[in-house]
Amino acid sequence: MSQPAVNGVSCVGKVLTLDNMNPNVRKVEYAVRGPIVQRAMQIERELKQGVKKPFTEVIKANIGDAHAMGQKPITFFRQVLALCSYPELLEDNNFPEDAKKRAQRILDSCGGHSIGEKTPPCVRQDVARYIERRDGGIPSNPDNIYLSTGASDAIVTILKLLTCGEGHTRTGVMIPIPQYPLYSATVADQGAVQISYYLDEDRCWSLDVQELRRALDAAKQHCNPRVLCIINPGNPTGQVQSRQCIEDVIRFAKEEHLFLMADEVYQDNVYAEGSKFHSFKKVLFDMGPEYSSTVEMASFHSTSKCYMGECGFRGGYMEVINMDPEVKAQLTKLVSVRLCPPVPGQALLDLVVNPPQPDEPSYTSFMKERTDVLAALAEKARLTEEIFNTVPGITCNPVQGAMYTFPRITLPQKAIIKAKEEGQEPDMFYCMRLLEEKGICLVPGSGFGQKEGTFHFRMTILPPTDKLKIVLERICEFHQWFTQDAFV
Amino acid sequence: MSQPAVNGVSCVGKVLTLDNMNPNVRKVEYAVRGPIVQRAMQIERELKQGVKKPFTEVIKANIGDAHAMGQKPITFFRQVLALCSYPELLEDNNFPEDAKKRAQRILDSCGGHSIGEKTPPCVRQDVARYIERRDGGIPSNPDNIYLSTGASDAIVTILKLLTCGEGHTRTGVMIPIPQYPLYSATVADQGAVQISYYLDEDRCWSLDVQELRRALDAAKQHCNPRVLCIINPGNPTGQVQSRQCIEDVIRFAKEEHLFLMADEVYQDNVYAEGSKFHSFKKVLFDMGPEYSSTVEMASFHSTSKCYMGECGFRGGYMEVINMDPEVKAQLTKLVSVRLCPPVPGQALLDLVVNPPQPDEPSYTSFMKERTDVLAALAEKARLTEEIFNTVPGITCNPVQGAMYTFPRITLPQKAIIKAKEEGQEPDMFYCMRLLEEKGICLVPGSGFGQKEGTFHFRMTILPPTDKLKIVLERICEFHQWFTQDAFV
Repeated sequence: MSQPAVNGVSCVGKVLTLDNMNPNVRKVEYAVRGPIVQRAMQIERELKQGVKKPFTEVIKANIGDAHAMGQKPITFFRQVLALCSYPELLEDNNFPEDAKKRAQRILDSCGGHSIGEKTPPCVRQDVARYIERRDGGIPSNPDNIYLSTGASDAIVTILKLLTCGEGHTRTGVMIPIPQYPLYSATVADQGAVQISYYLDEDRCWSLDVQELRRALDAAKQHCNPRVLCIINPGNPTGQVQSRQCIEDVIRFAKEEHLFLMADEVYQDNVYAEGSKFHSFKKVLFDMGPEYSSTVEMASFHSTSKCYMGECGFRGGYMEVINMDPEVKAQLTKLVSVRLCPPVPGQALLDLVVNPPQPDEPSYTSFMKERTDVLAALAEKARLTEEIFNTVPGITCNPVQGAMYTFPRITLPQKAIIKAKEEGQEPDMFYCMRLLEEKGICLVPGSGFGQKEGTFHFRMTILPPTDKLKIVLERICEFHQWFTQDAFV
Repeated sequence: MSQPAVNGVSCVGKVLTLDNMNPNVRKVEYAVRGPIVQRAMQIERELKQGVKKPFTEVIKANIGDAHAMGQKPITFFRQVLALCSYPELLEDNNFPEDAKKRAQRILDSCGGHSIGEKTPPCVRQDVARYIERRDGGIPSNPDNIYLSTGASDAIVTILKLLTCGEGHTRTGVMIPIPQYPLYSATVADQGAVQISYYLDEDRCWSLDVQELRRALDAAKQHCNPRVLCIINPGNPTGQVQSRQCIEDVIRFAKEEHLFLMADEVYQDNVYAEGSKFHSFKKVLFDMGPEYSSTVEMASFHSTSKCYMGECGFRGGYMEVINMDPEVKAQLTKLVSVRLCPPVPGQALLDLVVNPPQPDEPSYTSFMKERTDVLAALAEKARLTEEIFNTVPGITCNPVQGAMYTFPRITLPQKAIIKAKEEGQEPDMFYCMRLLEEKGICLVPGSGFGQKEGTFHFRMTILPPTDKLKIVLERICEFHQWFTQDAFV
């Protein structure tokens, strides 16, 4: 099949190939669902076909998907969602009155009283009121709230707005290392420049402003740094930032004229003694008008994490602060092209920011379910640190918050050489071997970024406690075998 | 507030301004939710505050949101969704057995049996089987099905993959004029080049391959045309393409080495006598292996339109055909960064592609609801054409399919001059005036593109029949006043 050349480009073969596709998309990497997950799925199929393995099931501790790991949904939320989906149930006496009231309110704010319609219900007001309560009364304007399809959607949108320039005037985006790879993927996709700042593993993955400054100064040579991304509590590193650290970061952002992106999706996931979640907005406003009226910021939240873990509903929002009104108008236009975030997710978000109150019938059971989930997570965070640190060659920081541990692993030199011979990162080699031997699926640290010469993996703390113990013990066994016997 | 310059860029003022934001985003236009909708919302607030107007409510005929206009959801779909949201209802005897069976099947395919989890259920297989039934047995491979957050999401993703090059090697995207502005907006946002081909209003908005060729040849001078987008049935123009026309388009795409994007979200919305929906895939395969094994294509569908109209759930899929396997791997990676489409939308999609069967208890009522919705739309399509064409100066093509009419309006020269004085497109001026006088919200034709010197508006045919009649009559009255009295 030979065809004429168009603009000197040959037309033989496919229209769309690896060589002529969007080059930025090719640069995108996303380890959380990378080759290791594909191999895990393949092994699952093999197990089903009766292939003998040293284990009977694959345990996927690679992804922060609470319900898939057996966490039960919050009853009240699901009752309201069922009522919204099928309003005939409003006549059903088995549903509590407060669930019906909530459902009726959501339906009333929907055009045609149907969650099948496109216009968002009155969720933005409820989100603003939630933020005000959370931040001790600091005002939140519903006009600054943008609903989103999970937090990822909003993060991509803000990074898109901020990307411009060519060559060494290209927008630079500061992201932590290790990071959640949505950030590096989006930076690559937008053709922006990644500026890596390293979290301090020896100080429980804390953020040091000196390191921000080092990274920024180096980056100024080859790009235009405009954005500073913070993940607090941290993913994959599980640290919770101190108030002092947040102040320092805000001061740095102001001095260096950076737009702050605060990823706060784990705001309810704080476990460690002495750790507390401080929102960037609250700290910003506590620092006085010199900061609160100047520093531009977007803060992100989601229904996918915390105690609800409803990833599948893709509910989320961002609050923008001090954003130029003309830019806001552009943002509004941009999000309207994509129509609206899913309305069931918006309804769920409305419940999360406006949960049952003490005088309502569902309050007691709601609080019990919420507390139980968070207490179990805290216990699993503690167990994870404790068990990993019993093994020589695994060093695990406390899981202060979020849903992951990111322990450092010492690998034998022979394994590192062998991995490189096979063209793999050493921690990918390690995780692949763990998957084959023990049926446990983790994500290698190289997928999140790490200091040169160090190796890690990310594991979620989401499996039920009993299963988590087994997972931790199997990894410890494996590690001892891998480091002591496998490469002698 | 004076700050040091970075790379010669002054740091005074906001970090993010209209001048230094992503320039492609600034170029995006999206009329469907533009200034006219903002004014409509303002008028609604004024009415609530008791401001006197020549009408008592604003009727929004600007947006294809069926439920917001009063269309009732399909009972069976909502029953299953309620069961999936709150599985305790599986014990409830008021739900039909087939709804329970469907819900159980969806829950079983979800990790943790919860639609709150992230991994897609077995929807892709069901979609593939649906396509096979629709296309008379032509095979569909679930590996070619990508689920999406509505069709928009998938359309944006494919356009993103296809965009590359700089200057006159930049990707050119052929889109119909008039078009649904998602296309022009995405082309602008990606920095690709829009290649407009005009539909033939005098031949019921049909597509003429000669016009495709004209547009393509002109575009080859300044860009690299790679994509041909087709909307069938048409939005905003309501035409249904003949089988012959689809063949011609496919032949053209093959000859000119173009990637075909077939937006088929209105595939069940066909009303006119003699019109029939032909899927691009079916026609492609009927044309024999010379075509079916070479022409690269993506076809899009959604849960937002047709008889269900569930915009709020953001369910959708695309099928890719003849896509290079390496590109497919890149596509899979790209979509995985955004995690997953909303699972309630996926569940709904699963029901749409796998509705109640004749031997199931819900079949009769399901079919009645479906038929009633489509019959009412057909009646409204007929009414719309009939009533508009009674008025001199409004010329309305038959609404063969989809949900819109795009009549041509003749405007008095004086009105055109007045509009230009006010810096408005003449049809925007007309629609704004209509909104102020009659409380009816339409979208001016200029938001969709139209031949220079012609004027149109888009109106949905979605209001309930009684209301639609009133809307049509008011528009006719207004048009007579506007053309005969207002500018004398």
